[in-house]
Amino acid sequence: MADGKKKEVKKETGLGLTFKKEENFGEWYSEVVVNGEMIEYYDISGCYILRPWSMSIWETMQAFFDVEIKKMKIKNCYFPLFVSSSVLEKEKDHIEGFAPEVAWVTKSGKSDLEVPIAIRPTSETVMYPYFSKWIRGHRDLPLKLNQWCNVVRWEFSNPTPFIRSREFLWQEGHTAFATKQEADEEVLQILELYRRIYEEFLAIPVIKGKKSEMEKFAGGLYTTSVEAFIPNTGRGIQGATSHCLGQNFAKMFEINFENEKGEKGMAWQNSWAYSTRTIGVMVMVHGDDKGLVLPPKVASVQVIVVPVPYKNADTQGIFDACAATVDTLCEAGIRAEADSRENYSPGWKYSHWEMKGVPLRIEIGPKDLANNQVRAVRRDNAAKVDISRDSLMEKVKDMLDDIQRRLFDAAKQKRDACIQVVKTWDEFKEALSQRKMILAPWCDEEEVERDVKERTRGEMGAAKSLCSPFDQPELPEGINPLISCHGHLSHYWYRMLCFWKASKEMDLLGQELLDHQVPVQSSIFM
Amino acid sequence: MADGKKKEVKKETGLGLTFKKEENFGEWYSEVVVNGEMIEYYDISGCYILRPWSMSIWETMQAFFDVEIKKMKIKNCYFPLFVSSSVLEKEKDHIEGFAPEVAWVTKSGKSDLEVPIAIRPTSETVMYPYFSKWIRGHRDLPLKLNQWCNVVRWEFSNPTPFIRSREFLWQEGHTAFATKQEADEEVLQILELYRRIYEEFLAIPVIKGKKSEMEKFAGGLYTTSVEAFIPNTGRGIQGATSHCLGQNFAKMFEINFENEKGEKGMAWQNSWAYSTRTIGVMVMVHGDDKGLVLPPKVASVQVIVVPVPYKNADTQGIFDACAATVDTLCEAGIRAEADSRENYSPGWKYSHWEMKGVPLRIEIGPKDLANNQVRAVRRDNAAKVDISRDSLMEKVKDMLDDIQRRLFDAAKQKRDACIQVVKTWDEFKEALSQRKMILAPWCDEEEVERDVKERTRGEMGAAKSLCSPFDQPELPEGINPLISCHGHLSHYWYRMLCFWKASKEMDLLGQELLDHQVPVQSSIFM
Repeated sequence: MADGKKKEVKKETGLGLTFKKEENFGEWYSEVVVNGEMIEYYDISGCYILRPWSMSIWETMQAFFDVEIKKMKIKNCYFPLFVSSSVLEKEKDHIEGFAPEVAWVTKSGKSDLEVPIAIRPTSETVMYPYFSKWIRGHRDLPLKLNQWCNVVRWEFSNPTPFIRSREFLWQEGHTAFATKQEADEEVLQILELYRRIYEEFLAIPVIKGKKSEMEKFAGGLYTTSVEAFIPNTGRGIQGATSHCLGQNFAKMFEINFENEKGEKGMAWQNSWAYSTRTIGVMVMVHGDDKGLVLPPKVASVQVIVVPVPYKNADTQGIFDACAATVDTLCEAGIRAEADSRENYSPGWKYSHWEMKGVPLRIEIGPKDLANNQVRAVRRDNAAKVDISRDSLMEKVKDMLDDIQRRLFDAAKQKRDACIQVVKTWDEFKEALSQRKMILAPWCDEEEVERDVKERTRGEMGAAKSLCSPFDQPELPEGINPLISCHGHLSHYWYRMLCFWKASKEMDLLGQELLDHQVPVQSSIFM
Repeated sequence: MADGKKKEVKKETGLGLTFKKEENFGEWYSEVVVNGEMIEYYDISGCYILRPWSMSIWETMQAFFDVEIKKMKIKNCYFPLFVSSSVLEKEKDHIEGFAPEVAWVTKSGKSDLEVPIAIRPTSETVMYPYFSKWIRGHRDLPLKLNQWCNVVRWEFSNPTPFIRSREFLWQEGHTAFATKQEADEEVLQILELYRRIYEEFLAIPVIKGKKSEMEKFAGGLYTTSVEAFIPNTGRGIQGATSHCLGQNFAKMFEINFENEKGEKGMAWQNSWAYSTRTIGVMVMVHGDDKGLVLPPKVASVQVIVVPVPYKNADTQGIFDACAATVDTLCEAGIRAEADSRENYSPGWKYSHWEMKGVPLRIEIGPKDLANNQVRAVRRDNAAKVDISRDSLMEKVKDMLDDIQRRLFDAAKQKRDACIQVVKTWDEFKEALSQRKMILAPWCDEEEVERDVKERTRGEMGAAKSLCSPFDQPELPEGINPLISCHGHLSHYWYRMLCFWKASKEMDLLGQELLDHQVPVQSSIFM
């Protein structure tokens, strides 16, 4: 492999990032997804190429999720990309939510189509006419379908790779039940799978909860979500959603059935989805100024082995040891590769694989060869450790587990440090200006949410509710709060999020906020 | 499960097919894909819903193919659905081939787009500008990518589920090499995978060969294919294609590299694809007047277990035996389910699962229970055999293997009986009228192919070449023929196919055909 002829050996130059995560988050992100070979920008704005380095992460999550939903007897199917305008517009709230973003096909070849045809922004209206056809009696329920596909939302706010793109990949599940109870249960089962994708695979802590009335799915009954947080910027971000649609779509699309007693019933429906956005959140949470940082569970290369030959050293021996190391690791089910390319210096390779976020680097030089060891360097904390080749497999396994765990812990620590419990409107504003996630009482009235948004609109963007967490923290005086988050409305980011939840007896707070009054000394806020 | 209360037990009525395969093939096919729950017709013409029963077949083939290409170091990626007109039109032959079928997006929400955007009919022009960007030096080669996606071809000939639809699912591989030799080798490696999908999974014999100049991929250098045959109707059908694009696209898209000596080179490219059409071919080849017939390797349910209780019999014992049978088979990796639904008679269930093509039915009645046996009924030949429950697993495995093998053998026998070797133009016409696949000498001149097409155009449709088989049969006098096939141009079928190939010295035949002369006594045709 290495024959000593090293013309044009590339040095470390030109590999780093121009922007720093803390200083120019947006620019840093754009740079890291391109230089890390996750994304290539495409010549149509808002569309991106998913390169193998990101696609493999999507496939890993897909493999997990697909097995889990099949255990739940959910079956995969494929419905068309196209939907006629008459069907798309059947559910009024729903189409209001999506209409401005729908892309329309009006021509084929040189001919105009008789009627324009929409590209699915989501498939409720694509699927439900057929649910109506297939569901006749109670024995046809539950009907549980899922599809892996692309959807198109022609958004006009400035797009961001993975996070907000005009076409994206997702799975969308669509299910129908005879009872609300079954639907409610499934909503939470799916939400738990989404939590596992974020926490177990992407090493990102999320908060499970219920969206506000204002932020719920257009046309649905209620929406649950997992909410992630980007500590560096104070941005909360919706990770995935599991909706109970209630009987609203069933009414519009006549999804009826006869029960065992011969009585007419109407189906209860859910829909749920996660998308390639997950990958963007992962990049934002873990990436650093050297590039991507991939959690071992989703990294297509978990260990990169780099030969470090010196002049007069046993070059062939080093390359052989690298190959043997890869073999040992691969046999143990670890995804390992050697970078045996000539014309690249070891230093260049270090930077290259750091940029790509490979969790563990193994270096083998003459000294390592002599001592029957390798040097392992962690991507997450740059810790270096010499490992005897005899205990290679176990040590590497342990290190990968530890990296996965530590990435999660570090992200959780940073996230938790940004959660602020507030009791007054002044505290709310203060926390908002500090880019915190705010946990505050909340009444879930649309009018109040709109008002808070209005009053917080400014340079930093308006406050927006994230969710009312299912796991409610203990607070004095029986306050029943909601996790919320703040951030700014930069030219391409989501409007930032914040809100607060109260149980029904807390509606007072909503009223007070509505009156633009700051409740300073209410027992409610103690 | 069975409590004896059987109000409204459904009988066998209403389950059969209206049309017979031999008599009304087109109508039979439409009926069988719908009644077998593979397809639901959609409210946009040419678009179809793939229900779980067909989607699972697609997933089985996908799982096989995806593993195989990953062994070849081909990586999955995802390029956008959309392509700008300027890029789409860059390769002139290519766009000429696809232009009439391209769907155009011209609006989003209520706004007109500045320029119309095309939906990919295939992704050569989507991808290759980025191949040009990513490929700089010889170390960037080979570049081997694949994507699983949907494509849109807005065809105006009448559509057919799976076989010809306006949107379909496929994989498309796109690779670039430094040398033609590497490209040539990969073309055949991929073609072999396509053969295995048809022969090993779908139990359909195919012929591997090279397409004529007229039928090759628009803009490519040469096209190889696997060609299947529908014996009942004499229809040949292209199963999948593996193209060598040569350097044509590389020239248009400037895919250049510097070799080890610093010399400029141009990449050699391939593209290859198979689609959900595979499923349609499978239905056509194996289906019968009772419905679908699924090869065990792709059937999501390989064995359906049906309880056959009688009055006064040990109903619970029968249901328990069914559940135990399913458990035994599932533990052995066989995909088995019990149909324990009440309100359906055993006879109704037999017809239902025959319609859906499940390879093996197991019936358990009081007598079986008493004798510690089950009755197995094959879908392919209706053979019935009693199996002791002690040897259940091995016997069922053997039967499934045998069904898979016999389906292939039967299809091959029927196909082979339809292959006719011809030596003269009269024989050619005669074989054509008999709906045979014709093996005939052939010069591969476009002008000749066009002429033969013209002269055979009639009620039955025009002759069309299939391929020049790689595996050439031994013929007297060194004739080098090509498999070709005939069929008729029904209102929604492919024009049918026939052609014949000769080595270069055979150009004479082309000339003679061109002159409308029938070479009766040439030594070439002996």
